[in-house]
Amino acid sequence: MSQPIPATVKIREVGPRDGFQNEPEIIETADKVRLIEALARSGVQRMEVTSFVRPDVIPQLHDAAAVLEAVELPDDLSVSVLVPNERGLDGALAHRDRIDEIGVFLSASDSHNRHNVNRSVAESLEGLEKVITRANADGLGVEAVIATSFGCPYEGHVDPLRVYEIAAALVEFGAKEIGFGDTTGMANPLQVGTFFTGARAALGDDVELTAHFHNTRGQGLANVLAALQVGIASFESSFGELGGCPVPAGATGNIATEDLVSMLHEMDIQTGIDLDVLLDASAEARRVLGRPLGSHTLVAGAIDWSGTVS
Amino acid sequence: MSQPIPATVKIREVGPRDGFQNEPEIIETADKVRLIEALARSGVQRMEVTSFVRPDVIPQLHDAAAVLEAVELPDDLSVSVLVPNERGLDGALAHRDRIDEIGVFLSASDSHNRHNVNRSVAESLEGLEKVITRANADGLGVEAVIATSFGCPYEGHVDPLRVYEIAAALVEFGAKEIGFGDTTGMANPLQVGTFFTGARAALGDDVELTAHFHNTRGQGLANVLAALQVGIASFESSFGELGGCPVPAGATGNIATEDLVSMLHEMDIQTGIDLDVLLDASAEARRVLGRPLGSHTLVAGAIDWSGTVS
Repeated sequence: MSQPIPATVKIREVGPRDGFQNEPEIIETADKVRLIEALARSGVQRMEVTSFVRPDVIPQLHDAAAVLEAVELPDDLSVSVLVPNERGLDGALAHRDRIDEIGVFLSASDSHNRHNVNRSVAESLEGLEKVITRANADGLGVEAVIATSFGCPYEGHVDPLRVYEIAAALVEFGAKEIGFGDTTGMANPLQVGTFFTGARAALGDDVELTAHFHNTRGQGLANVLAALQVGIASFESSFGELGGCPVPAGATGNIATEDLVSMLHEMDIQTGIDLDVLLDASAEARRVLGRPLGSHTLVAGAIDWSGTVS
Repeated sequence: MSQPIPATVKIREVGPRDGFQNEPEIIETADKVRLIEALARSGVQRMEVTSFVRPDVIPQLHDAAAVLEAVELPDDLSVSVLVPNERGLDGALAHRDRIDEIGVFLSASDSHNRHNVNRSVAESLEGLEKVITRANADGLGVEAVIATSFGCPYEGHVDPLRVYEIAAALVEFGAKEIGFGDTTGMANPLQVGTFFTGARAALGDDVELTAHFHNTRGQGLANVLAALQVGIASFESSFGELGGCPVPAGATGNIATEDLVSMLHEMDIQTGIDLDVLLDASAEARRVLGRPLGSHTLVAGAIDWSGTVS
């Protein structure tokens, strides 16, 4: 914890994929497009806008192609889509001009990976090598997310060395960014500091290390702070606190982008995001979904240092 | 941030006062007693069980005397009651054998203090000198809480030097513990680290410094982490995330004791609290109040490292 915290942080907004995917009702395509464009207006630099998955498995994202073709987004927004396999990559490549990068994923623990994609970690790695190689050949950057990096609901502790090993393989395949997912909110700040220090040492300075924390037990932003303190400057979050792994049942998932941005800005860390515009997007999501969302700042509003609250 | 984080932390549970006071419906006395006793079973070391205030002003705590006399609590639990003034102290002293300490409070900012107790800070200090002196004379320890220590909704920034000056006066009067309240959730981790480092330097090592954070914008536990990193080892929180300042309207207040305890235990910091027993108390509060509570760990459950989640 001896290094200065980063002055600038990159945020990838994952709500349009991770959030919309986990809603019980399928959101109308037009609503998705409007929300994605509202998010883009906030100035966020990276957004995962959808995923090319089988619509019979995840009907919530059946309209991935339609959404991707409809959204009008600024050129400087890095647009990514999540792809589970080569078939998903084919879907993404059919809209090559609409995307800048892809996300791929697997779990660090075999049990979670089998629950999620019905493969061993070794089998997933074999498949991802092909996906990453082909994506790179087409000029697409690749982020590879490793779920259950900080603990697994089926296996408990996950050996960080195993996570680094998987990450190193993904880097070797061509991933330029590794996302470490705290899929069921088991990470704590002490662990996070040690984990990312080890990850940097194991993976070197050329690969971008991204933290994807969940707020399952309220510790999401404390984990962000711990990651910042060991030099991590890339985070993933979801507007409104939408989405995330529904394990345990009923639990909240992703940290809310507006809560993350509020904390970072108050700490004088730049994100390029206009918090008020972001809050407008989350408020619109709340209207579309017709229920209260988990985001705190959406309820409380941005901090007003002018002292004009009456 | 060069010192090791504390190995042990003291927590004062303030839900029975701060939480019950802020419920729109008055909770039955028998329910209060049952919840307080359930909390005590968790092993929490300190609890603010009620407040002696005018029942026409705060009807929610009209039964302060009845609650205090009815609860059966372990001898090693430090029982405190909040008193706003000498009349409140009289009320508390009528039950001298039931309490170990009192809490007093004022705000660091004049506007907030006037909104809250209709006095200037100077007038409040004058009154508190008498309260603290009399309490000490009766062998009662005194915690003095300074609200809006990290920012004021009516005035914006609050000068830390002014907060330390108020704290020093309260210590001079005889307070052995100063609680710094982030009343409307304006604190950030960077500010917290600087603030408490300055407070320790200004107030010396003999006074206990307690952090009372709110989770208004989701940053509560990140602020706890920042306070731990500069050696703060005393915190206040509320089971279920009950209570706290309802400004801005609808916002959540106190950090949830179970979220705090979950994070601390995961960081190998001892609290003396049995998290499962604490969660039972919060679940009972949820039944009594008949609504979902803000606590995350109450929804998700304690982290299970055994890997038996199915």
